[in-house]
Amino acid sequence: MPLDHTAKGVYPIAPTPFHADGQVDYASIDRMTDFYRSVGSTGMTVLGVMGEAPKLDGAEALEIARRFIRRAEGLPVIVGVSAPGFAAMRALARNAMEAGAAGVMIAPPNTLRTDDQITTYYRQASEAIGEDVPFVIQDFPQTFSVVMTNAVIRRIVQENAACVMLKHEDWPGLEKISALRGFQADGSMRPISILCGNGGLFLDFEVERGADGAMTGYAFPDMLCDVVRLQAEGQRDAAHDLFDAHLPLLRYEQQQGPTGLAVRKYVMARRGIIASDAQRKPGASLTAKAKAEVEYLLARVARHDPRAGALG
Amino acid sequence: MPLDHTAKGVYPIAPTPFHADGQVDYASIDRMTDFYRSVGSTGMTVLGVMGEAPKLDGAEALEIARRFIRRAEGLPVIVGVSAPGFAAMRALARNAMEAGAAGVMIAPPNTLRTDDQITTYYRQASEAIGEDVPFVIQDFPQTFSVVMTNAVIRRIVQENAACVMLKHEDWPGLEKISALRGFQADGSMRPISILCGNGGLFLDFEVERGADGAMTGYAFPDMLCDVVRLQAEGQRDAAHDLFDAHLPLLRYEQQQGPTGLAVRKYVMARRGIIASDAQRKPGASLTAKAKAEVEYLLARVARHDPRAGALG
Amino acid sequence: MPLDHTAKGVYPIAPTPFHADGQVDYASIDRMTDFYRSVGSTGMTVLGVMGEAPKLDGAEALEIARRFIRRAEGLPVIVGVSAPGFAAMRALARNAMEAGAAGVMIAPPNTLRTDDQITTYYRQASEAIGEDVPFVIQDFPQTFSVVMTNAVIRRIVQENAACVMLKHEDWPGLEKISALRGFQADGSMRPISILCGNGGLFLDFEVERGADGAMTGYAFPDMLCDVVRLQAEGQRDAAHDLFDAHLPLLRYEQQQGPTGLAVRKYVMARRGIIASDAQRKPGASLTAKAKAEVEYLLARVARHDPRAGALG
Amino acid sequence: MPLDHTAKGVYPIAPTPFHADGQVDYASIDRMTDFYRSVGSTGMTVLGVMGEAPKLDGAEALEIARRFIRRAEGLPVIVGVSAPGFAAMRALARNAMEAGAAGVMIAPPNTLRTDDQITTYYRQASEAIGEDVPFVIQDFPQTFSVVMTNAVIRRIVQENAACVMLKHEDWPGLEKISALRGFQADGSMRPISILCGNGGLFLDFEVERGADGAMTGYAFPDMLCDVVRLQAEGQRDAAHDLFDAHLPLLRYEQQQGPTGLAVRKYVMARRGIIASDAQRKPGASLTAKAKAEVEYLLARVARHDPRAGALG
Repeated sequence: MPLDHTAKGVYPIAPTPFHADGQVDYASIDRMTDFYRSVGSTGMTVLGVMGEAPKLDGAEALEIARRFIRRAEGLPVIVGVSAPGFAAMRALARNAMEAGAAGVMIAPPNTLRTDDQITTYYRQASEAIGEDVPFVIQDFPQTFSVVMTNAVIRRIVQENAACVMLKHEDWPGLEKISALRGFQADGSMRPISILCGNGGLFLDFEVERGADGAMTGYAFPDMLCDVVRLQAEGQRDAAHDLFDAHLPLLRYEQQQGPTGLAVRKYVMARRGIIASDAQRKPGASLTAKAKAEVEYLLARVARHDPRAGALG
Repeated sequence: MPLDHTAKGVYPIAPTPFHADGQVDYASIDRMTDFYRSVGSTGMTVLGVMGEAPKLDGAEALEIARRFIRRAEGLPVIVGVSAPGFAAMRALARNAMEAGAAGVMIAPPNTLRTDDQITTYYRQASEAIGEDVPFVIQDFPQTFSVVMTNAVIRRIVQENAACVMLKHEDWPGLEKISALRGFQADGSMRPISILCGNGGLFLDFEVERGADGAMTGYAFPDMLCDVVRLQAEGQRDAAHDLFDAHLPLLRYEQQQGPTGLAVRKYVMARRGIIASDAQRKPGASLTAKAKAEVEYLLARVARHDPRAGALG
Repeated sequence: MPLDHTAKGVYPIAPTPFHADGQVDYASIDRMTDFYRSVGSTGMTVLGVMGEAPKLDGAEALEIARRFIRRAEGLPVIVGVSAPGFAAMRALARNAMEAGAAGVMIAPPNTLRTDDQITTYYRQASEAIGEDVPFVIQDFPQTFSVVMTNAVIRRIVQENAACVMLKHEDWPGLEKISALRGFQADGSMRPISILCGNGGLFLDFEVERGADGAMTGYAFPDMLCDVVRLQAEGQRDAAHDLFDAHLPLLRYEQQQGPTGLAVRKYVMARRGIIASDAQRKPGASLTAKAKAEVEYLLARVARHDPRAGALG
Repeated sequence: MPLDHTAKGVYPIAPTPFHADGQVDYASIDRMTDFYRSVGSTGMTVLGVMGEAPKLDGAEALEIARRFIRRAEGLPVIVGVSAPGFAAMRALARNAMEAGAAGVMIAPPNTLRTDDQITTYYRQASEAIGEDVPFVIQDFPQTFSVVMTNAVIRRIVQENAACVMLKHEDWPGLEKISALRGFQADGSMRPISILCGNGGLFLDFEVERGADGAMTGYAFPDMLCDVVRLQAEGQRDAAHDLFDAHLPLLRYEQQQGPTGLAVRKYVMARRGIIASDAQRKPGASLTAKAKAEVEYLLARVARHDPRAGALG
């Protein structure tokens, strides 16, 4: 089933599990995929920046995507296909769709500056991968140095029928969600799904502003699922209580680049979701001090959420 | 008393209070200064980025600095003197020191790239303002796009006797604090004061890593003072409890640019520390939705910290 | 007489002459101004980037502008007023206009990214300095990292009655001139003056594309004046012959940053237009090898243009 | 024969010829390769930025490299292997070397900032592709936004035995050549080959400063070969005379991005070196005005160099 604008819930950004020697750990892909399904994820996103996609060669990337898709058993899988050029992007996108992906995600190259450069890029990308391939805009200025105004996002949506979702991770970004939903309300933009990233740092309010859920990689995707569900049920205080209990750890994981990923993989390994916290080179690992800080935070979270306790 | 490397505690980043028409609100400067002293601040920093310094002309900047210094009655005041050129920097620095400033803070221009460009810049800056003027390095890559390695900071310290403090706001940054303290321990760098910025988002652990305190502008500097004090007293859990209670609001204030400043000024005005949340043009103000979110967060913080409640 | 859209010819970008000790050399300002007039310049631009404006404090900048204006005896002088904030920009702009400037030039801060950020900036700048002050857009992406599309320039022109001129130094830029003149032809943009910078590297074709002349600082502004005049007279081949004779030296001067300025000042000093090639610190000076290269180039230019020979 | 530090002469940056429909034009690859050999090129570089490498998928890139290498019949071919990650870089580098490449060229990703980031990147790249693969540093700050000091280049050379050449295209860059040759003279850096790019804009002086030749793509590589040879023979004035005759056209081709490439391919097609000036999408083509300007320049060059005349 192709991705469309009605997507909601939580699409965890899946890390790529590696063995200590840098080989892909396929068994952990299976275990992680099962875990995501078991906690109520509504989809998954693979081969993003935090999936260490640039460290993979083309054949590996495709094999990893296939493994996730097969194991997901129908859960929609979005595949990151950002590439320095459209030929490579097309190759991965077509192959991923053939393998059963629900859609693809495209980040802008960090050299884009003007509104026209950005909208032109997405038009050309959609043409390159085929207009039958649903795609997600990734709006992450902190990492990509590309600033998209509300109006630019609207232009991309209006100019590309295949654009069905925004991965929203501008910061600050709450007013952007309100503005985009306003565009839908006034009829100037067709509906899209908005899933939020940026480590989940503002998820509590983002769903209140009209976001459909989360697409990020915090090591407790079960918490993200619960927060989105509680908000949907109207249990605002309960949603914030749970979110706030995790916020000290979530904030700690939200350190840009390989450090944040090291925290994420460390906690996922501690939870038994993946076998090892190894990153493929060049990567990062946690110092003893950092590990102790994470353990301290886990213990504190566990006072409110038992899932953070008794990790073996 | 000139600033030196023994500085510790909390130096709030003072916003510049304005009236609704953009005029400087000097009465609020006095009130805010009194407030900072009353809650245990050990110093203050004025005319930083969040002090809207670039919106002031030279004469205003100096008058504001003088007003803070006079009212601080001996509490050391650091004056931001970052400028596009050394002549303007020198003029403000000399005048500020003459008016009684304890030292100055210098951010690197966002065009610097190589290690040598950065260290050369600080050598030339110190020569320009006079080597008798104690200065603070501002290390804030997210905002200034200038990346300083640990070794570059050490070079700046070793090459400039007047360099006495680091405003640490790299992100991720915990390992940087450990590394710099390691340089002091192995004798390769003379001691400096390290005060942490970045909105206070990691202050709880930064002081555990060896930072001397905070230099940031969260609207509850009293909380920052308490956290630093509790950690100094060895009350780790109590420090984290207090910090965590504020983290949802602190995180909300930690939105880059004018939005974050709008939150800060809004809360400070709600607390009666300043008269108005106005920013000088071009600035930002909070939407009704954002105000409601801040109020919701204040009410939640008030469950743990009465200072956030009953705001009139 | 205020600057308006009919401006044409050559407005040399005047360097600021310094003595070896970094003091401003006012006598050389007078001599240089007389020289510019004597060779047929139709105006002058002072306090630009290559005028080392950021190294001046506010009082110096104003005094220098006044000196140029007084000596120019009616020749229109444009004053660069780019500043990190609008208060400083306003102060210099108002003072310069009071002193007799014909208009001001405004470069965008290098943090602007989106079309809206750029057009908003110019609206706010014009409001800040006063809508009675004619201003020039400086479009120089190589140096300022701000990319303005043709449509953005049109928006700035249409939104600001005070915008009368474009300093065109985008690169590549020939099609931009054609497009902007096309906007005028189709009535979608009111007429503006277009003077070209970028070291003059494409001046030969820029005037053929519809530019009104040059605003750049090549050490032979007399050549620039001749090329613009020859093209206006329809002497295309003669214009190119003269331009090409200078191109090897012009290209050599066209090295970004202090190196290019060092070449420019060296040649101007050799020609007796200014007393010294000193730059205020931090600056650059030519190595012995570079000086020998410049002398070699001067000798070669002199075979075609006697003004480059017999320099004392 | 693997590339080593004794390489000299001219290694043209080969464009990738396409048919109008975007397919690779292999017959033109053969013709162009023959042309390069016939005019005295000492090597070739393929799959660089101006070879539209990012628009190719992995299989195409390899096939193109193989075609060039086979046709070059022993002339050393350097293959650009810059990639967003080391896995893709390794795959292309190993395959290219197996196909007979003499070495590879590596540009830094545009996110690198500090000296350590840059030197670490090259260490990791060399380790990734194998330390038996000779590589070329591409130092092109205008395009890649990565600034390498002289000392950083020396560190890369000293830390990586496989580093044998610098593609020098910093600007300004003459003093950099002198400094690097000085490092060799004082024994602090082992010898490397320095070939110059940046469109050839300073080639006349670069070889005088100690560069070994050119690696750039001007549409008259025969002229580049002649200039390098004349300088090697001590015919300085003749070298400059020839260079200067081409400079107006060379300067016109030296427009960054697809415009410059459009000029290059247009002239190469006019000369019969390739069949079509088509760029693969997204690309650029010349307007009628631009074509007329190029024709005018060709006619002017032809007065001094008959190779620019009578183009059919």
